Amino acid sequence: MSQPPITPVLDKVRLPSDLKSLSDRDLQRLADELRAETISAVSETGGHLGAGLGVVELTVALHAVFDCPRDKIIWDVGHQCYPHKILTGRRDRIRTLRTKGGLSGFTKRSESPYDAFGAGHSSTSISAATGFTMARELGSECGDAIAIIGDGALTGGMAFEALNHAGHLGKRMFVVLNDNEMSIAPPVGALSSYLTRLYSEAPMQDLRAVAKGAVSLLPEPFQEGARRAKEMLKGMAVGGTLFEELNFSYVGPVDGHDLDTLLHLFRSLKTRATGPVLIHAVTKKGKGYAPAENRPDRGHATARFDVQTGAQHKSPSNAPNYTKVFAESLIDEASRDEKIVAVTAAMPEGTGLNLFAERFPRRCFDVGIAEQHGVTFSAGLAAGGMKPFCAIYSTFLQRGYDQIVHDVAIQRLPVRFAIDRAGLVGADGATHAGSYDIAFMANLPGMVVMAAADEAELVHMVATAAAHDEGPIAFRYPRGEGMGVDMPAQGVPLEIGKGRIVAEGARVAILSFGTRLAEVLKAREALAARGMAPTVADARFAKPLDTDLILQLVAEHEALICIEEGAVGGFGSHVAQFLSEQGVFDQGYKFRSMVLPDTFIDHANPADMYASAKMNAEDIEAKVLEVLGVAVAKRA
Amino acid sequence: MSQPPITPVLDKVRLPSDLKSLSDRDLQRLADELRAETISAVSETGGHLGAGLGVVELTVALHAVFDCPRDKIIWDVGHQCYPHKILTGRRDRIRTLRTKGGLSGFTKRSESPYDAFGAGHSSTSISAATGFTMARELGSECGDAIAIIGDGALTGGMAFEALNHAGHLGKRMFVVLNDNEMSIAPPVGALSSYLTRLYSEAPMQDLRAVAKGAVSLLPEPFQEGARRAKEMLKGMAVGGTLFEELNFSYVGPVDGHDLDTLLHLFRSLKTRATGPVLIHAVTKKGKGYAPAENRPDRGHATARFDVQTGAQHKSPSNAPNYTKVFAESLIDEASRDEKIVAVTAAMPEGTGLNLFAERFPRRCFDVGIAEQHGVTFSAGLAAGGMKPFCAIYSTFLQRGYDQIVHDVAIQRLPVRFAIDRAGLVGADGATHAGSYDIAFMANLPGMVVMAAADEAELVHMVATAAAHDEGPIAFRYPRGEGMGVDMPAQGVPLEIGKGRIVAEGARVAILSFGTRLAEVLKAREALAARGMAPTVADARFAKPLDTDLILQLVAEHEALICIEEGAVGGFGSHVAQFLSEQGVFDQGYKFRSMVLPDTFIDHANPADMYASAKMNAEDIEAKVLEVLGVAVAKRA
Repeated sequence: MSQPPITPVLDKVRLPSDLKSLSDRDLQRLADELRAETISAVSETGGHLGAGLGVVELTVALHAVFDCPRDKIIWDVGHQCYPHKILTGRRDRIRTLRTKGGLSGFTKRSESPYDAFGAGHSSTSISAATGFTMARELGSECGDAIAIIGDGALTGGMAFEALNHAGHLGKRMFVVLNDNEMSIAPPVGALSSYLTRLYSEAPMQDLRAVAKGAVSLLPEPFQEGARRAKEMLKGMAVGGTLFEELNFSYVGPVDGHDLDTLLHLFRSLKTRATGPVLIHAVTKKGKGYAPAENRPDRGHATARFDVQTGAQHKSPSNAPNYTKVFAESLIDEASRDEKIVAVTAAMPEGTGLNLFAERFPRRCFDVGIAEQHGVTFSAGLAAGGMKPFCAIYSTFLQRGYDQIVHDVAIQRLPVRFAIDRAGLVGADGATHAGSYDIAFMANLPGMVVMAAADEAELVHMVATAAAHDEGPIAFRYPRGEGMGVDMPAQGVPLEIGKGRIVAEGARVAILSFGTRLAEVLKAREALAARGMAPTVADARFAKPLDTDLILQLVAEHEALICIEEGAVGGFGSHVAQFLSEQGVFDQGYKFRSMVLPDTFIDHANPADMYASAKMNAEDIEAKVLEVLGVAVAKRA
Repeated sequence: MSQPPITPVLDKVRLPSDLKSLSDRDLQRLADELRAETISAVSETGGHLGAGLGVVELTVALHAVFDCPRDKIIWDVGHQCYPHKILTGRRDRIRTLRTKGGLSGFTKRSESPYDAFGAGHSSTSISAATGFTMARELGSECGDAIAIIGDGALTGGMAFEALNHAGHLGKRMFVVLNDNEMSIAPPVGALSSYLTRLYSEAPMQDLRAVAKGAVSLLPEPFQEGARRAKEMLKGMAVGGTLFEELNFSYVGPVDGHDLDTLLHLFRSLKTRATGPVLIHAVTKKGKGYAPAENRPDRGHATARFDVQTGAQHKSPSNAPNYTKVFAESLIDEASRDEKIVAVTAAMPEGTGLNLFAERFPRRCFDVGIAEQHGVTFSAGLAAGGMKPFCAIYSTFLQRGYDQIVHDVAIQRLPVRFAIDRAGLVGADGATHAGSYDIAFMANLPGMVVMAAADEAELVHMVATAAAHDEGPIAFRYPRGEGMGVDMPAQGVPLEIGKGRIVAEGARVAILSFGTRLAEVLKAREALAARGMAPTVADARFAKPLDTDLILQLVAEHEALICIEEGAVGGFGSHVAQFLSEQGVFDQGYKFRSMVLPDTFIDHANPADMYASAKMNAEDIEAKVLEVLGVAVAKRA
């Protein structure tokens, strides 16, 4: 562990109110110390680094000028909030970030009154700020609402919906566009080019111009004369017209690392603004820490690292991770079928599609943080005769739910959904849990829903999806490393709606959907040692159900236990519906369905999260013993 | 029934290819006849009238110039497609619109190869067109993709996501902005004011200017001189800068009812366009039919009517409809609690919130077609201390699902979801079915989920939601008229998680969630006549479950049948999960869950749809007899 930084000014700050007595010069020192402290903390915990370093000066300026928690600072996505947490009474716990029982890696209302609105997903901040603003207008005890949103998050449609609405309402509120030309990956889209033009065609506005802009909040009236007109015209072209057309006053671009400018600007705006204002701040992700600045992702997310060298402490992996297995399998399929294309919503690295894009650049589409469009764009590709793989994390696929129903399922278009990060995801916590996709996909008519039990199964499911051209199909797989199983040379399409027996046993059958299979097999071993080895089967499909397999398991065992990494309403519910319709329960049958509990589970490592969800091997073993009526001593 | 119109030109047109041999003068006659035929058809069937009348000339011009089905015309929402259907081989069935077995009121791929992409919900067309375009670029046999999207639909965030992506891709495709200053209600938002400025500050472009614009597809380079600069400046301000900033060439505004201009424009674009083009056409909803033009909603949706007078044939209602009961109850609550505010996503009439807005204009927010923002805006209002009622149809709430999970449920913010159009909705068909909300809401931790069994229950549920400030709460109710029950003078909050026994009986208990209760009671009457009256209970809550009531029903009856107007994964699945965990099935128990079948059900009247779903009184009766083992003759 490196030496903690020396931070005499920061040491005197416990809450944002402590900033009010600091001189501007001390605020600059505070910013420098805050940056050092952020680097030091993340070097110990890992987590999101680049985003926080990019907003150190913004964080200091906002807290120096505005009065939180009465004023509402709303960090979009929230992963840039570590400096904010340090300044808002949580410095003593900042080295517990993203660990069990520690601080969340995102803003979280239950953690602090200074976290006005929690996040984790992107593009929500302007909507929330508009809500706070109208609450204030209607008499609630709220001050100003300030949304800080990145240029990547601005490509999310709901940010545009919010700008459109807030511009219409016309009430005083602030949107700080934190333009770092990076979301997680370099942003795509016409908007991004537009923003770049805004600051590349004009020099960064100096303090005087900015203050003047903030005073008038409107471009000057047009004046006669060619020279003047030309100047004005140029001013318009680079003057944030897009935002002004949505009724926001545009101020900028300003250097988001120039604390003096930021302080003067926010003070001026606080005094004078009457309507919605967009402040365009240009920042650098990873600012002030060379190892982060120099990484292609600007230090977006990092493991623990050495502060001096930037070297990350990563544990060696034992098995290929699911994401990479998916990507390689898809590349393999695509090499044999030129109709296969891939779609990601701003997650080329996270989904592994960066590898696909290297191999097939014309056949890979990054649509930006735009899951709604991504799904319907995929539907359009399918309607046009292509075989699109739409790779979106389970939690983000919630953003495209209506499009899955309306554009894909109702039209029976063969879109392939690759659902990464299924189940509990670890340090990202509740906002990123993939808990609901089984339920919300499996009740759609005509949808095929698979879950991979291990990384070899994933290879076959990619092949199954590639071959399935009759309608939509989805396959889910978790974050992280596989089981280390033998890998097939090439994927072989599975028979749709057919599961498999993994291990024969007696009395109890466990029907697993997804990667709990490994825990089920562990439980089986423990039970076998007691002479009670259950039969273990892998359902592979939540839809269509393998009704033959289910009835066979029922016929040959006195109890059936289903297990899945998802909430109630999914696989187990479909099995229960089938069994009750079959009259299986009428004469007595022991059926249990192990699902995620009815709580949002806080961040921890996945094994701990599944322990608290009571879905690990020992919980499965206990469930088997319970249905068999074997008395077990309660664990302490 | 009025005399059918005389349509000599239209009579010669069976498919769009027949338009190729018509002179421009005949195409104008065709447009006039098409308008008359559309009015005549809708006068007999009812349906969406104003939107179709607004695009008659666009429809003729597009089909005259482009080559469908190779070229892909994609109608956003799809309710303006009646003239398109008449021209694409479906004139002989146009008087079956929206009736059982007849034509859909929207575009539908399974209905015709000329319906390139089905719709029903808004804002999807640009995404689909982008998909077709990239499929063509990758070698698929597709021609040009043309999206026609209204100014209201353009406020939907996914339309912006698609513009951003399509502008980035830079490939030839067309977006026709059908700007009629109306979606269903007058549109809100800064974008709408912007569009209005575009055509109010400049005269409509004449044919020459338009053709010239289409040739250059870019504004002329800047030239010196004050006069010229001023002109140019004005040109920019009204020249669709917003779209050009997203890398679309902007052409317009043009008069969308001037067929000659449209024909020349599309011919020019077809020959010359190389990248994405946005054509801004100004139209009038209801154009050419005075009774529609003069209605406040421009004849958006209509019952059957008399062509001469425009008088609608509406059957007298027997009971207040649910939408109005909701609105009046909410007004009543709001008159006693000034924290109550209401949010609609462009559906003030459909949700009844127009009544609320009349009474409390400052406390009602129409966010535009922007469900994602609407939900998170509500979350912001709640975080700011207000009591927001977010009123969104079940089917459209799918658009805000991630926001419900991420911004409302995880933060336990007390947003009240008023879910209208729950269950099957009739003539709007599968795209508008409210089938999934029970499942996708009830598996969210901390969410309270209610369904009203009748209109009096709805009054109490509004009161319950108003009083419930501990977390989110949702209540669902169907389209249409209530049961005609006695209405309470004022709503009384229900105890959270408690159902009620409606009628005592024996052997079988039916636990109903929602308005199937009336059918259950009908079934009970029929069964009572045979001496087998079941107990009937109203669950009121799918979450939290009334476990006491459920266990009591189980203890006192040999069978329990759940019924709900939703797909598997919802109420019945939660009851099944509870019962299996309780070990109720272990020794034998007859449990059934009646849910919507695993198919998308085509448009028909709701009773017919529920008949095909096997959820009417006779189906419930049959289910009771089945679990009792009473042999029944199969119905023919």
